[in-house]
Amino acid sequence: MLTPTLNVLKETLKRLLYKGNYKALERILQKTHKGDLVAIFRYLSHQERVKIFQILMNIDIEKASDLLYDLDEDIQIEILRALPVKEALRVLITFSTGEISKIIDKLPVELQNAILEKLAEEEKEELQKFMSYGEDSIAPLISEEYIAVEEEKTVEEVLNIIRSAPEDIEIIYIYVVDKKDRLIGVASIKEILTAPPNAQMKDIMNTDVISIRSDAKKNEAIDIFQRYDLLIIPVVDENDELIGVIYIDDILDAVTEKTTEDFFKMAGAQEEELFYTNQILKTAKLRLPWLLVVVFGEIISAFIISVFDFTIRQFLPIIFFLPLVAAVSGMISSQSAIITARGLTTGKITEYFKDFLHFLIREVKVAILIAFVVSFIVGLISSVWISTHIIGIVIGTALFLNIVIAAFVGGLLPYISLKLHRDPTIATGPITLTLNDILGILIYLGTATLFLEYLRI
Amino acid sequence: MLTPTLNVLKETLKRLLYKGNYKALERILQKTHKGDLVAIFRYLSHQERVKIFQILMNIDIEKASDLLYDLDEDIQIEILRALPVKEALRVLITFSTGEISKIIDKLPVELQNAILEKLAEEEKEELQKFMSYGEDSIAPLISEEYIAVEEEKTVEEVLNIIRSAPEDIEIIYIYVVDKKDRLIGVASIKEILTAPPNAQMKDIMNTDVISIRSDAKKNEAIDIFQRYDLLIIPVVDENDELIGVIYIDDILDAVTEKTTEDFFKMAGAQEEELFYTNQILKTAKLRLPWLLVVVFGEIISAFIISVFDFTIRQFLPIIFFLPLVAAVSGMISSQSAIITARGLTTGKITEYFKDFLHFLIREVKVAILIAFVVSFIVGLISSVWISTHIIGIVIGTALFLNIVIAAFVGGLLPYISLKLHRDPTIATGPITLTLNDILGILIYLGTATLFLEYLRI
Repeated sequence: MLTPTLNVLKETLKRLLYKGNYKALERILQKTHKGDLVAIFRYLSHQERVKIFQILMNIDIEKASDLLYDLDEDIQIEILRALPVKEALRVLITFSTGEISKIIDKLPVELQNAILEKLAEEEKEELQKFMSYGEDSIAPLISEEYIAVEEEKTVEEVLNIIRSAPEDIEIIYIYVVDKKDRLIGVASIKEILTAPPNAQMKDIMNTDVISIRSDAKKNEAIDIFQRYDLLIIPVVDENDELIGVIYIDDILDAVTEKTTEDFFKMAGAQEEELFYTNQILKTAKLRLPWLLVVVFGEIISAFIISVFDFTIRQFLPIIFFLPLVAAVSGMISSQSAIITARGLTTGKITEYFKDFLHFLIREVKVAILIAFVVSFIVGLISSVWISTHIIGIVIGTALFLNIVIAAFVGGLLPYISLKLHRDPTIATGPITLTLNDILGILIYLGTATLFLEYLRI
Repeated sequence: MLTPTLNVLKETLKRLLYKGNYKALERILQKTHKGDLVAIFRYLSHQERVKIFQILMNIDIEKASDLLYDLDEDIQIEILRALPVKEALRVLITFSTGEISKIIDKLPVELQNAILEKLAEEEKEELQKFMSYGEDSIAPLISEEYIAVEEEKTVEEVLNIIRSAPEDIEIIYIYVVDKKDRLIGVASIKEILTAPPNAQMKDIMNTDVISIRSDAKKNEAIDIFQRYDLLIIPVVDENDELIGVIYIDDILDAVTEKTTEDFFKMAGAQEEELFYTNQILKTAKLRLPWLLVVVFGEIISAFIISVFDFTIRQFLPIIFFLPLVAAVSGMISSQSAIITARGLTTGKITEYFKDFLHFLIREVKVAILIAFVVSFIVGLISSVWISTHIIGIVIGTALFLNIVIAAFVGGLLPYISLKLHRDPTIATGPITLTLNDILGILIYLGTATLFLEYLRI
C-alpha cells in the first residue's frame, strides 16, 4: 500500500488531472522522484496512467523512459499498448535490446514492426538471440550504459571521455576492449585518477576481469555479484565481445521479484495479487486453478478412503489419526521440497545428478531418523489411548513408511521440475501437497488392512 | 554444493595442509578470490578452517578480514572462538562497529572485554546503541568505507583525497559534511571531474541527498535502494551526523539470506541445514521441534474426531471428505498467510491497522467467492457419488465455512506476529497449518452432526 505521503501525492495528481491544471501537474511530476511515481502508478486507473505518462513524456522524455523501465511489467505493457505507435516508439527506443526482448512479444504487431524497422541489422540479430534465451535469462537486465575504451587510449583521453559521458552512466569502472571489441581489461576510476596522464589504459588496466556470458541465467549473475562483491558486471557474447553491463540494483529488483513469485508459487497464488487489491474477482480467478487441482486430487483421496470402507467399519479408531498422518508427512515432504528447491535455486546444490543424489540420500536418512522418533511417540500415545497395543504398531509402521516416502518424493520433485526446465520451486506447492495426501492415505489404510485381524478387539 | 573446480581447489588446500607444505598453500590462498574461499570454508572441518585462516592472516590480514566478514555467521563465530584472543582481536578490529554489534554476544567473555578495551568511548556508545536495535536492523551492514569532506574543500583537494584513499573504498559518491559532521550534500565522481579545480564542494554538491537513519530496519533499506536506484546509501544518526554507508552488495546478501530463512521458516526447518549436509543427527534435531508441534496439534485433531465417533458410525461417508476439507482450507489459509506476510515484509502492506484491515477484508471477500465455487463443485460431486442429496448440502456448507474462516485466520496471524515483534513469515508455517486442521475438523464434523438426522439414508 502507499505511505500516507505518497497517497497525498497521488490524490493531488488525480485532482490536478481532472481539473485540467496541467501546469501544476507538470511541476509536481518534475519534482517527484521516478521511484515514487512507480509506486503511485500502481494505484491509478488505466486512463490516468496513460494521460500522466504522456504529460511526463512531453516535459522530460528521459525521466519518462526511466519510469517506464521500472514499472511493473503489466502496467508497462498496458501503457505501451495505449500510446500512439509513434509515441511508444519514441520512448521504447531508449530501452536496451535486452529489455525490449522481454516485452516485444506482448506489444501490438504494428508496434513490433515499427521497433524492428528502427533497429540496426546487428541489433535485430541481438534481439532475436535474447528472445531465444527464455525468461530466466539475464538479457532484460543488460544495460548499455557503460564506458568502454580501446587499450591505446591515455588516461587523459579517458578522463575527457568520462567528462563528456551521458549523465545516467555510473562511473565506477572503465572497461578496456581490443580492436575487435573484445573485453580485455578493466580499470577503476581510482586507478585512472592515480595514474600519470599519459599512461595508456593497457598499462594500468586489470586483465583479471570477471564477466558474464549474455546467455547466462539470473541465478548465475546473482551468484557472481555475491561471490565477488561487485557493483557492475560486464556482459560478453560468445565471441568475448563486450555487449553491455549489468548493474547490481537491477539484480536486486530481480531477486525480490523472484522471491515474491516463489512464495506465491508455494501457495498456488500469483504475484499480481498484491497489485489488484480491489479486484476481488480477478484475484479469485488467479487462485482458483490451483485450488481445483487440490480439490480433484483430494476427491481421489476420498475415493481411496471409501475403498477401505470395510477396514474402517471394523476398527473405527484408525480414522482418528488420518489427519495426523497427512499433516506430518505433508510437512516432511514440504521440508524436503523447499530445502532442495532452495538449494537448487541458490546453487548450493548443483544440477549434477551425483551431487543431487548425495543430497537426496541425506534427506532420506534424516527422514528415517525423524520417523523413528515421531512414530514411536505417536505409536505410544495411540496405544495408551485406544487401549490396544497393536494399534500403536500399526500406526507407527504406517507413519514410518509415510514419512520416509514423503521425504523422498518431496526431495525428488524439485529436481525433476528443474530437469524438465521448470522452476524447482513449483514442486513445493499444491501438487506435492495433494500427491502426498493420496500416497499417505493409501499407505496408512493399506497397512491397517494388513493388520486388520489383529486390530479387532 | 561446490562446483567441480572449487572442489579440486578444496582438496588441494586440504592435501597441502596435511603435508605441511605451507609455501604452496600460501601461494594458492593468495591467488584464490575471497568469494571462492567463503564457499570452500563451508566444506572444511573445524581444524582445517582455523588453521587455514591463521595462515591467511599471517600473509594477508586484509584479505583474512574480508573473508571473515563474508563467512556464514556460525563459521565466523567458530573461528573467532578458536583463535587466541590477541589474534582474534587483530582481525576483529578491522570490522565496523555495526558488524561487531551483531556477533559480540556470541564471543567468549575474554574476547568481548578485549574488544571493549580497544574501542574509543564514542565507538563503545555506538556499539551499545547498535546492539539495542534488534536483529532486523541495518546496523551490521553499516560500512565505514566512504569519503566525507567538508563543504569548503576545493575540487582539487578532494581529488587528492580520493587518490590517497584506501584501496577498498569504492569511489562513486563523495559525501559533504558541515563542521558538526552533519550530512549536507553529495557529489558524484563525475560532477567532481567536470567542475573547475578551484570550485568548492558546497558549490557543486547536490543538497537533495537521500540517507537512512541508523536505527532503520533492513526492509526500509531495501525499499530505498530499489525505489531510488542507488548503489550506496549514507547512514546518519539521530543528530544527522554521517556515521557510515551501506553498500548495495551487502543488501543483496541480506536479501538472499532473509529469503532462504523465510522459506525454511515456512517448512519448520532452518537455514543452517544447507551447510550441514553430512550431519544427519544435527539436521534431524533442527527439524524435530516443529514436527512435534504438528504431532501434538494433530493429536488434538484425533481427539476431536473421536468425540464425533457417533456421527461417523451413523454415516461413514462423511469421513471420506475429511482430507479434502483439510487440504483445501489449509491451502486457502496458507495463501492468505503468505500473501499477507509477503505484503508486510516488502512494505506493500503497511503496519497501519486500517491499511491491514482493508487487506484482510479483501482476503475474506476473495475467500467467499472461492468458497462458493469450490463448495458447489464438491457438494455436487459428493451428492452424485454417495447418492444422497443432503450430503452435498452438508459438505458444501461445512466447506464454505471452513474456507472463509481459514482465509481470515491465515490473513490475521502474520499481522499478529508482526505486532508481537516477530517475523510475519513465521505465521505461514506449521502452527497455522495445525491450527487450521483442528478448526477445520471441528467445523466439518460439527456441521455434519447438526444435519445428522437428515443424513441417515
